[in-house]
Amino acid sequence: MPLEALSHDVTPVGLHYLLVHYDIPLIDEKEWRLSVGGLVDREVSLKLAELRDRPAVTLTVTMECAGNGRAALSPRPISQPWLLEAVGTAEWTGTPLRGLLEEAGLKPEAVEILFSGRDRGVEGGEAQQFERSLPPEEALGDEVLLAYEMNGSPLPPQHGFPLRLVVPGWYGMTNVKWLERITALERPFSGYQQAQGYRLRQDPGEEGEPLTRMLPRSLMVPPGIPDFGTRERTVRAGPCTVRGRAWSGLGAIERVEFSADGGAAWADARLGPPSDGWAWRSWECEWEPHEPGPVELCCRATDAAGNTQPLEAPWNLGGYANNAVQRVPVTVTSE
Amino acid sequence: MPLEALSHDVTPVGLHYLLVHYDIPLIDEKEWRLSVGGLVDREVSLKLAELRDRPAVTLTVTMECAGNGRAALSPRPISQPWLLEAVGTAEWTGTPLRGLLEEAGLKPEAVEILFSGRDRGVEGGEAQQFERSLPPEEALGDEVLLAYEMNGSPLPPQHGFPLRLVVPGWYGMTNVKWLERITALERPFSGYQQAQGYRLRQDPGEEGEPLTRMLPRSLMVPPGIPDFGTRERTVRAGPCTVRGRAWSGLGAIERVEFSADGGAAWADARLGPPSDGWAWRSWECEWEPHEPGPVELCCRATDAAGNTQPLEAPWNLGGYANNAVQRVPVTVTSE
Repeated sequence: MPLEALSHDVTPVGLHYLLVHYDIPLIDEKEWRLSVGGLVDREVSLKLAELRDRPAVTLTVTMECAGNGRAALSPRPISQPWLLEAVGTAEWTGTPLRGLLEEAGLKPEAVEILFSGRDRGVEGGEAQQFERSLPPEEALGDEVLLAYEMNGSPLPPQHGFPLRLVVPGWYGMTNVKWLERITALERPFSGYQQAQGYRLRQDPGEEGEPLTRMLPRSLMVPPGIPDFGTRERTVRAGPCTVRGRAWSGLGAIERVEFSADGGAAWADARLGPPSDGWAWRSWECEWEPHEPGPVELCCRATDAAGNTQPLEAPWNLGGYANNAVQRVPVTVTSE
Repeated sequence: MPLEALSHDVTPVGLHYLLVHYDIPLIDEKEWRLSVGGLVDREVSLKLAELRDRPAVTLTVTMECAGNGRAALSPRPISQPWLLEAVGTAEWTGTPLRGLLEEAGLKPEAVEILFSGRDRGVEGGEAQQFERSLPPEEALGDEVLLAYEMNGSPLPPQHGFPLRLVVPGWYGMTNVKWLERITALERPFSGYQQAQGYRLRQDPGEEGEPLTRMLPRSLMVPPGIPDFGTRERTVRAGPCTVRGRAWSGLGAIERVEFSADGGAAWADARLGPPSDGWAWRSWECEWEPHEPGPVELCCRATDAAGNTQPLEAPWNLGGYANNAVQRVPVTVTSE
């Protein structure tokens, strides 16, 4: 998502970030089924039309890739080299997962719920389909959806047509696309995307901590105009309103600060209306540069749980969860 | 556009390629106007609703960036490092430009028609808005549209909302997005995007040849499954139908050939129905690998004007119009 798209409350399709591990599968809605099995009383197999006939909910959700910010780390972990654009906010429509699991009769022995997508590829030397699991208490959250619409239209192929899991507040990898199977497990899932990928480690030998909910982050629409090749930005001296968005999977956004001197001095930004809990919150701050020359603009969010974005990037082997403050160098000109 | 999206006759929004020189402008439809001026009898200013009230045409058009294939050149010109994904096919709905120019009374002295977008940035050290011109005989072609819909919906912001020029058969830079002014000129336009950018040169000092229509190209959906990090592909031995698309801005596609040995031996692919003239044509070819090991798949298109894709990439300073045959290395496995 190019950062000027922060101007939209809901990110238009095609501007929302995407991370596609393998190829986008081409799925024929007529042959597709969602199966629910494993430790349940009654196995279930549902067509898309049957899912659409179930109770429907629409939630506006900000979703961010766990690797957003990776390209700013040094040494840079080898994976998708996101700067800060791996985010977006969409209106997801679907049926709550909880109702479906209750109808299938989730057994109390189930320790995890596994979500399997249709997409296939090789990762870590292992052929696999993309699969991720959740603890039952997370999977049974009221806000967890099996989504078949994005922004009021059927899911586009690249966002998981015909069905994806949406787990508000969690990093993007949780929201399994091209979902075709839900399995209640008696043992924790040890597949690649859970046991190897998406863990915070300093060394390859560590078991590491799994990534879960999004850390707080604020981003601004970079002011001024860019250079095509270098992407360096130029801003004319004079009054300027800097606008942006902030979000956290750990609590409501309570504060956003803005700095026009690289983080030495901070001013509180004005916050827009609180979100319903899952979408980003808008903010703005007045800035009036007088002197021509280079400056560095920064913003920093704090959530209701007391988490604040760090000034320095927290390095880890996979390059995940780098929520260091955004730094936007611009050159002020007098013309 | 990830190449598996070649499976779609019409590319879903969000999978169609995009090249955005500067920032995507945020345009309020209520304040936006299209103005037509310069060497015309009557200056015109139109609201979007007025353009929508005019005669409407929908055309299915394949559009490709002039820089598609740049990343395969050596030495690699510094610009957007496209591999082969800078293409897409959309249904564009709009009103023919010709009718509007006739109503404005295009004067015979006009030597070029200039199209100015709202997007602003710096390129070649020069602050500018994106502007490109066409000779009157091209601008007056029946197929040239002022498009306000893509795939049946209002243009997304990233594709030029509220209006873009669509010139079927020409490379992407011709199709000016966020269009706000059309000017009939008495002298050829000498702005950056016409006189500096988008020209074929071997040396910086040359005037160079302007890029116009798309050279022929065929692309296949790469078979098998990818490795997440390396994108190397693995295909199981056994029968496989390789499918793809081909297009040219210089004439209808008349032939597509497929090679499974790096271009030493070629077989004719089966062509799908001819397109209406502006959209890509589908093709497919049977391939049955027996021996495990690496192979290189290739495809090559020929158009009705007798243009065939070259085996070697034609180098130029800007890295444009590299329509060398696609080469897809895959490893055949016995499992």
